[in-house]
Amino acid sequence: MKEVVIGIDIGGTNTKYGIVDRKGNCIYEKSICTNSKNGVEEYVRELTETLKKDLSTRPEVTLKGIGIGAPNGNHHKGTIENAANLKWKGIIPFVEIMKKYFDVNIVLTNDANAAAIGEMIFGGAKGMRDFIVITLGTGLGSGIVANGELVYGHDGFAGEIGHTIVRHNGRQCGCGRQGCLETYVSATGIKRSVYKLLADSLDDSILRSVSFNELSADMITEAAKGGDRIAISAFEYTGSLLGQKLADSVAHTSPEAIFLLGGLAKAGDFILEPTRKHLELNLLSIYKNKIKILLSGLTELNAAVMGASALAWKELEK
Amino acid sequence: MKEVVIGIDIGGTNTKYGIVDRKGNCIYEKSICTNSKNGVEEYVRELTETLKKDLSTRPEVTLKGIGIGAPNGNHHKGTIENAANLKWKGIIPFVEIMKKYFDVNIVLTNDANAAAIGEMIFGGAKGMRDFIVITLGTGLGSGIVANGELVYGHDGFAGEIGHTIVRHNGRQCGCGRQGCLETYVSATGIKRSVYKLLADSLDDSILRSVSFNELSADMITEAAKGGDRIAISAFEYTGSLLGQKLADSVAHTSPEAIFLLGGLAKAGDFILEPTRKHLELNLLSIYKNKIKILLSGLTELNAAVMGASALAWKELEK
Repeated sequence: MKEVVIGIDIGGTNTKYGIVDRKGNCIYEKSICTNSKNGVEEYVRELTETLKKDLSTRPEVTLKGIGIGAPNGNHHKGTIENAANLKWKGIIPFVEIMKKYFDVNIVLTNDANAAAIGEMIFGGAKGMRDFIVITLGTGLGSGIVANGELVYGHDGFAGEIGHTIVRHNGRQCGCGRQGCLETYVSATGIKRSVYKLLADSLDDSILRSVSFNELSADMITEAAKGGDRIAISAFEYTGSLLGQKLADSVAHTSPEAIFLLGGLAKAGDFILEPTRKHLELNLLSIYKNKIKILLSGLTELNAAVMGASALAWKELEK
Repeated sequence: MKEVVIGIDIGGTNTKYGIVDRKGNCIYEKSICTNSKNGVEEYVRELTETLKKDLSTRPEVTLKGIGIGAPNGNHHKGTIENAANLKWKGIIPFVEIMKKYFDVNIVLTNDANAAAIGEMIFGGAKGMRDFIVITLGTGLGSGIVANGELVYGHDGFAGEIGHTIVRHNGRQCGCGRQGCLETYVSATGIKRSVYKLLADSLDDSILRSVSFNELSADMITEAAKGGDRIAISAFEYTGSLLGQKLADSVAHTSPEAIFLLGGLAKAGDFILEPTRKHLELNLLSIYKNKIKILLSGLTELNAAVMGASALAWKELEK
């Protein structure tokens, strides 16, 4: 008998899940559509039916728990609260609904927190007690680990480094405020920086032929690899602001390492080098030369599923 | 037999200590001069002699441990490292030296961290698992508690919120950087703000007759109480920047409450009201209307000694 958990990553469009053993081997992985016509109850019914079918064809495994990563997931309450990217509005008691179908430990948190736990259990943070994971997707998510435990905060919503202010009265943010880190450092942020650089400079760039809506972080990475100066400058600017602001995060929890994950992290040294440089330049002297900036040790492909699985395993250790 | 600990607060000029029982009753308190002519070894010999004498006159008590709060105190190593306000230079293995004289559990941390543990064990944070203490003295110190544990960080130096950046390219800081929170929010910071306001405005103020060197936070508080517009504006500006920046701290650890302690906190509503207002204005929506800004529950008089004692008691619980 092999003990396994199911890790579920709920995204705006797709839900990915995997059956994962204690060592982090993903035995089976699948993706289904997130949006059901008839709301969350129907979605959970469909999801759990599929899960049960997948388990029934594997009589050698015993399900021990389920971990879920979801936008605006609240660990304390097991709820998904007012997630902008999901069609289910208000406060969804997601764990409670799931428990109608599975009589195992079910635990939920937001996607970046799940990634941090994945990093701790299966990734590059094994053995570390203090570290931060930054997810660079459409926005900037973060998970903070201190004293070997994920920091959830009193309300379950800790770790929103994407919504700390890097520039007073800076860029307009979707959250209604100005100057949030994610307006500069994210797939959307670097697009805005490319457009600002195209406006401010006269440098030639292959990105001058691309509309804002068409432009993607991958296109900027490709342009940078081809030597495009605007694209390279955009990464330098993005990394400089990330480095500057991570110096503030270090002054909070003094992590051993900060891991970068997600679309922009795929640019490798284009983002890592300026981030490292500007972190060091901006650190208080007691922190200098001891904080590592690393790429995530989880494979990009299923990092979110591995994070959700790790969350389930961590819960079972308690 | 009554079990007690000794709490020691090492300051630049004086060292205060107290004999404290498990309920937080301070049985005895004393202050000695911190600076010995012949360095830290002689200082510790004098300090421990005095402590032993005080204990010997109280045969009814049993010493269980010693807690020490010191500037740049490193909890992991038991060292005091390059403290600007102390005459002992370099890295002092303080706990190791103390252990030559006392065969009990001895534990050390920085003064703001000790204050946070004091707040948790004896003060207003009893029962809270996530909160922050801000000490407003010459500088701005902080202690962060998450998941019921003080956040020390991988190197023992976490919690330097005074050295996060509230204004890019802002005021020059003693740490060599610019725009640190403590250049605006501290006894020294509010003096600088008073001088800026005196320069920018034509308002009458009794503070126009006071030199920068003579000016103290207490004088600014007294002037504000008397209706002085410059003094009141200085508190509003100080509180507005503290509130703005605490919104960043909330986005890291989402505390239930933030406690203010130290000289500036004595100004009460003059500092509390603008801090609360600007925290709320600047919080990400998920955090609004749930973070309390409170004055410390420790009496100002011996908060540091109570913090150091609480540190010792907390260590004994492990």
